[in-house]
Amino acid sequence: MKLKKIISGILVVALAFSITGDVCAATIDNVKVEKEVKNVILLIPDGMSTGGLTLARWYNGGEELNLDSMASGLVRTYSADAPIADSAPAGTAMATGFKSHTGFVGVLPDENTMPGLNPIRSSDKRKPVASILEAAKLNGKATGIIATSEIMHATPADFTAHDPSRKNYDSISEQQVYQNLDVVIGGGEKFFTSELRGDKEDLLSVIKKEYRYASTPVEFHDVTSGKLWAMFAPSALSYDFDRNPSKEPSLGEMTKKAIDLLSKDQDGFFLMVEGSKIDWAAHANDPIGMISDILAFDKAVGVALDFAKNDGNTLVISATDHGNSGITIGASSTDNTYDTTPLSSFIDPLKKATLTGEGIGSKLNKERSNVEAVMKNYFGITDLSKAEIKAIKNTADASMNYTVGPIIAKRANIGFTTKGHTGEDVTLYVYAPESIDQLTGTVENADIALYMAKAMGLNLNETTKKLFVKAEDAYVAKGAAVKLDTADETNPVLIVNKGAVEVKMPVNKNIAYVNGEKTLLDGVVVYNGINTYVPQSAVDLVK
Amino acid sequence: MKLKKIISGILVVALAFSITGDVCAATIDNVKVEKEVKNVILLIPDGMSTGGLTLARWYNGGEELNLDSMASGLVRTYSADAPIADSAPAGTAMATGFKSHTGFVGVLPDENTMPGLNPIRSSDKRKPVASILEAAKLNGKATGIIATSEIMHATPADFTAHDPSRKNYDSISEQQVYQNLDVVIGGGEKFFTSELRGDKEDLLSVIKKEYRYASTPVEFHDVTSGKLWAMFAPSALSYDFDRNPSKEPSLGEMTKKAIDLLSKDQDGFFLMVEGSKIDWAAHANDPIGMISDILAFDKAVGVALDFAKNDGNTLVISATDHGNSGITIGASSTDNTYDTTPLSSFIDPLKKATLTGEGIGSKLNKERSNVEAVMKNYFGITDLSKAEIKAIKNTADASMNYTVGPIIAKRANIGFTTKGHTGEDVTLYVYAPESIDQLTGTVENADIALYMAKAMGLNLNETTKKLFVKAEDAYVAKGAAVKLDTADETNPVLIVNKGAVEVKMPVNKNIAYVNGEKTLLDGVVVYNGINTYVPQSAVDLVK
Repeated sequence: MKLKKIISGILVVALAFSITGDVCAATIDNVKVEKEVKNVILLIPDGMSTGGLTLARWYNGGEELNLDSMASGLVRTYSADAPIADSAPAGTAMATGFKSHTGFVGVLPDENTMPGLNPIRSSDKRKPVASILEAAKLNGKATGIIATSEIMHATPADFTAHDPSRKNYDSISEQQVYQNLDVVIGGGEKFFTSELRGDKEDLLSVIKKEYRYASTPVEFHDVTSGKLWAMFAPSALSYDFDRNPSKEPSLGEMTKKAIDLLSKDQDGFFLMVEGSKIDWAAHANDPIGMISDILAFDKAVGVALDFAKNDGNTLVISATDHGNSGITIGASSTDNTYDTTPLSSFIDPLKKATLTGEGIGSKLNKERSNVEAVMKNYFGITDLSKAEIKAIKNTADASMNYTVGPIIAKRANIGFTTKGHTGEDVTLYVYAPESIDQLTGTVENADIALYMAKAMGLNLNETTKKLFVKAEDAYVAKGAAVKLDTADETNPVLIVNKGAVEVKMPVNKNIAYVNGEKTLLDGVVVYNGINTYVPQSAVDLVK
Repeated sequence: MKLKKIISGILVVALAFSITGDVCAATIDNVKVEKEVKNVILLIPDGMSTGGLTLARWYNGGEELNLDSMASGLVRTYSADAPIADSAPAGTAMATGFKSHTGFVGVLPDENTMPGLNPIRSSDKRKPVASILEAAKLNGKATGIIATSEIMHATPADFTAHDPSRKNYDSISEQQVYQNLDVVIGGGEKFFTSELRGDKEDLLSVIKKEYRYASTPVEFHDVTSGKLWAMFAPSALSYDFDRNPSKEPSLGEMTKKAIDLLSKDQDGFFLMVEGSKIDWAAHANDPIGMISDILAFDKAVGVALDFAKNDGNTLVISATDHGNSGITIGASSTDNTYDTTPLSSFIDPLKKATLTGEGIGSKLNKERSNVEAVMKNYFGITDLSKAEIKAIKNTADASMNYTVGPIIAKRANIGFTTKGHTGEDVTLYVYAPESIDQLTGTVENADIALYMAKAMGLNLNETTKKLFVKAEDAYVAKGAAVKLDTADETNPVLIVNKGAVEVKMPVNKNIAYVNGEKTLLDGVVVYNGINTYVPQSAVDLVK
């Protein structure tokens, strides 16, 4: 009895030291990796619930979706301090292995209050932690991100930037530009222009110097090698159903292009693909927008799977970051008739819609004199009530999906519980080559980062140590003076002085000026509102 | 190119012949079985949605549930002719490998109208098809069923009876009594008494002759070998939170007892365990009832897992038959605050409840003068609105959970979309010994039957051929006269005459009287309203 207790004690200690994220990594410890994979493709259908997926499959005829064969378990999506996560901490967990706080992008939370999480040391509050993309990059792999939102939106930001506020687009987008990514595809061009930036930087010009830049499908398809940065809209891209193919490629085409370019790297690649607006349609309770972008997302999964199956050395993983809307096939209208309501009663009303709720917004005129014609022509609804017509007339274009989404959902017996995120476990999807155990069971969202790292033979903690050294501590320990110059408060600069050496490092960039001479760092300088963090390579510049 | 086409052609033909259920069994074809298992335990949390499971886990403190490590994919739950299934066809699919129609228990539907299903031949309409339990029994294995509802409720019926109406309790319960099961545990005693039966049969006496009968936990625990039939209530058992342990054992205790008894069989066993009332609480939108019985169910899963891990030769599978209620953590009250709402705002209001909504019903007096006291003492609610008090006063005890469930759900920010079933894919849970591939991906509910059969080396189609021969065809082919004698219309008897031989077989029993001499058959005689089906052994009685 006593022996058994001692052995248990040893096991607990061993587990404690094997923790790499903020939750126990026992699940990952059990994963066997016979041979590391070269490439990982992570696809995130933001805010997709299982009810939405099932509905999209029926809308599509009922045949197997690309995701279907990959279903392998569940993911717990709670954040550091709430059972329902916002995309910023949910994506941070998948990117870095650490759960975080609402709005926090790639940084630790101030505290972990949810059950079972390790406490955050006060010196670690808001500390930037390395993403799987950064770990891949530091190990010579090519990296890429794709989103149908603006590219600095929470989820792609989680993999490529570090900031306690997802709203800090200036900071996030600047880090993205200086992250030395290989492929960036999405929307959000306007946020890189000096006119719209608080820091007045003309980042679009910087991008155009470093990348083949594309803003149309023709330019996009023209790029067949090298680094690509493509943005097809000032902010978010269109929903797939509303998309004009001459202005925007599909998510599947973007994924294909990214894989074509990234797979030229001998060292392999990491690619993150987000179906961003599934979440937005869910917030609006617009089933058409959800179906539109779930099906477009699933085609992107198909592209990734085709590559992986042919390549044999690629891991494909997919999971939404959180539920949203509580969408169900079945609503209060089917309380008593659910099992005798035919498929057509759910699907036929949806099939009549040719645009999403957002697309409807773009078809209505300012005077709202064409409400009935638009709803008939593009949503197939001819029995609008007076109250519905009035509601549509009183809705701004930008939030039209919030009004017309529920109008069509009601006719299709589709239920929703909320216009916000939800806290249920979500489905884990994994395609793993035979040399790696498929991740299965009920895992933490943070486990996904650890699994990807293990699969590629990368170490996230080591990467964090290399990329995010607390500048003050490190330079002071070397006898240097260090200060953050905020004279231009939109463009703070870290200044380090020791003897005759002065190093200036603008925040959010991978640049150090050593006595005026430009040197590139292997990561970006991050200021989290408390401390400034620099790569170890920046520390090494001062002897 | 031509060669490839020919090969494809052959493959298609091969697949067509390998179909054993009504949907393509490609998923099952891919499952490798190195060594067949001896035992299978299937646990069905009726109507449990993933949102309910996640809520129950948080209610329980957030630590891993027994089910968690078993999550391995998704299950499609649609029926033969509707995207949302009733328990009867959903359980029939899991039991027999065939999807069916609303209310149909263990028989084929009249038609398959959902996409991708094979057509039903007109001669096969309502034909009984063998369950995995019957296949196990025919192969010498011990068999058992457990339910917290009355034992002839749809799900346990699906494994042990065949009738086009789940409401036909007389027929279903009679088949159960004559199925030669080894362990039966649940509720529903009154439906076996002659007073309450249309056929006036005293089945309780028959049970007591064939089985050790238990109606109290003391009697129950006293049975340590042989055949056990236990029923602890006239109809359904209590929710676990409302349960009086001196009157009813827990679902975990029932599962333990069943395994203890069944595992004495050298040939192995099949056991089905249903957490029946998770579904009922979901219909009522009562989160307390759902949590109560999900946690009780999960403990039963733990009992099964403990046995399986120790035994090494047992497959454990779990999946709900369908979603219900669309329950989510998050509701319209958290539309804009979901990510900053702490865990306590969801869980604390629920923790104050010590009874389910059904339990509340039992505490209210007839005059309803104690509404506020009961709601305070047992639900922890002290801020009832006048409308809520009025609603409770106007509700009958039996449906009190429909009134008080939503009252507590609202205070806990728990959302529901419906009081009916829902159509989303549900989570598949599998614990398989190393010698068998874990079922994974997105599978059909019917695949679960095929997987269990393959795991045990059983053949469902062959079992159907042995157990359900169309009596008229078979006896007429032998030159016999055959008729269904419905003189006593509640006790129809199949009568076969050839020469000097007369065979009488009462419907729903496993008994044949050959010229008055009693012989036992290896299955029950089934009348589906169109034809009578008998085991091949009954056909063989006529030379």
